[in-house]
Amino acid sequence: MITSTSNPHIKEIRKLSQRKYRRESGLFYVEGLRPITSALNHAAQVTELIYCPELLESEFGWELLQRAQQQGIATLEVSRPVFESISLKEGPQGLATLVRQNVRDLNAHTEVQGLWVALEGVQDPGNLGSVLRTLDAIGGSGMVLVGDGTDATHPTSVRASMGAIFTIPVFQTSLDDFITWKKNHPIGLVGAVCGDVPDYRSYNYERDMLLFMGSEQKGLPPQAQAVCTGLVTIPMIGSVDSLNLANATSVLLYEIFDQLHPLRKK
Amino acid sequence: MITSTSNPHIKEIRKLSQRKYRRESGLFYVEGLRPITSALNHAAQVTELIYCPELLESEFGWELLQRAQQQGIATLEVSRPVFESISLKEGPQGLATLVRQNVRDLNAHTEVQGLWVALEGVQDPGNLGSVLRTLDAIGGSGMVLVGDGTDATHPTSVRASMGAIFTIPVFQTSLDDFITWKKNHPIGLVGAVCGDVPDYRSYNYERDMLLFMGSEQKGLPPQAQAVCTGLVTIPMIGSVDSLNLANATSVLLYEIFDQLHPLRKK
Repeated sequence: MITSTSNPHIKEIRKLSQRKYRRESGLFYVEGLRPITSALNHAAQVTELIYCPELLESEFGWELLQRAQQQGIATLEVSRPVFESISLKEGPQGLATLVRQNVRDLNAHTEVQGLWVALEGVQDPGNLGSVLRTLDAIGGSGMVLVGDGTDATHPTSVRASMGAIFTIPVFQTSLDDFITWKKNHPIGLVGAVCGDVPDYRSYNYERDMLLFMGSEQKGLPPQAQAVCTGLVTIPMIGSVDSLNLANATSVLLYEIFDQLHPLRKK
Repeated sequence: MITSTSNPHIKEIRKLSQRKYRRESGLFYVEGLRPITSALNHAAQVTELIYCPELLESEFGWELLQRAQQQGIATLEVSRPVFESISLKEGPQGLATLVRQNVRDLNAHTEVQGLWVALEGVQDPGNLGSVLRTLDAIGGSGMVLVGDGTDATHPTSVRASMGAIFTIPVFQTSLDDFITWKKNHPIGLVGAVCGDVPDYRSYNYERDMLLFMGSEQKGLPPQAQAVCTGLVTIPMIGSVDSLNLANATSVLLYEIFDQLHPLRKK
């Protein structure tokens, strides 16, 4: 059992809260029973499971630990102060993992099928994670992070995704490369903007397509709008002139879901 | 000009980031050009405007300052270090206000008209604020915060609301009092739950109603569901078993909006 918070390996784990160290190591940190279950269920490359017997109260947690050990995943027993030093939660449950990042090249991915979301310059990792969660909920197939923004393995994104980080493949690319990629791929790309474009409810969404959302502050830049096959807007009749990015994306995704899976009633 | 960060009044302003001091003072802190504009536009009780000439770069900001002075609002000039000591933003714009909380008693409010949202036990001020923002966008009329949760004047909620904190009246009540209030008010109360209840798209929403959402962790408790006039659920076909609270609320609000303001096409 590791009992020193200054143990070099424990220090490395703490550093994974910084993007720089996630990049260098190729790993990210995942905490909590639900996301760890999702990681194991969806064949994420879990490199190590860290547990603290004193904090691990739930039977389900012990079963997870046993399951990981049976899968040949390395386990690391730590003391309560050590676990609390790496934990990012209030009331930690005593179970965490390190997971290898699945870096995906959009250019190598020749065929886009199903419903994808492309987020351009997304800043808030909570938004990013909760979009992954909604995208999973409506049966979406993939996400592209375009340009400079936060990354999907940010601890807040991982937590907000509620496990969807392990079910939705995430690709990363620059805006220029995305525009080039789009020109070579005849697939629907529907951009959401504020302005004089069709109401999102009037658009006939394709079965295979990407929904393209701009950043929280600036929306979709002109060169991104230019490669879209369609533009839609969400009507607003109050005082605010925009919605939260994740809320807007969720509204659009459920409209697309509704068109693909209509209720007879409507 | 106040140049000392340890000035007693400046210390009091900083304390408003804590709920305890917001309660004691009856004030809350608002920063940024857009929310301050919303406060002035919607007759919020702005008690004081704090500005820092060195940081206040935009012409629009100076116009706001002038407008506040013409309305007889006290202004306070502070140095850059002082403003930065009270600011909650990266890259502060040099303009902030103190606003008196508008504490509203649900029982004194006999008639609910239009579309309201009731949030039970909401924990995340970012969720609360962004629900206010969406509610404003679809032309909603009010919000009720039920039971123990975060408050609408939390700085994160204020920021996330993008000014909607000043357009949507917010009421606070206990769950018991809300249940009693509901029994005395024959208005639609539609609860959102996970479970075997009608799809949210199949429900005919009333023009005057409250949408009732449970907390992030626990959802609507049974005694809250019991007073609902209807229950709906959002279908999910992926791996996750729930959505982010604000995302779910936004999806529901735009469905209600769609029923009240249908497109001819659909």
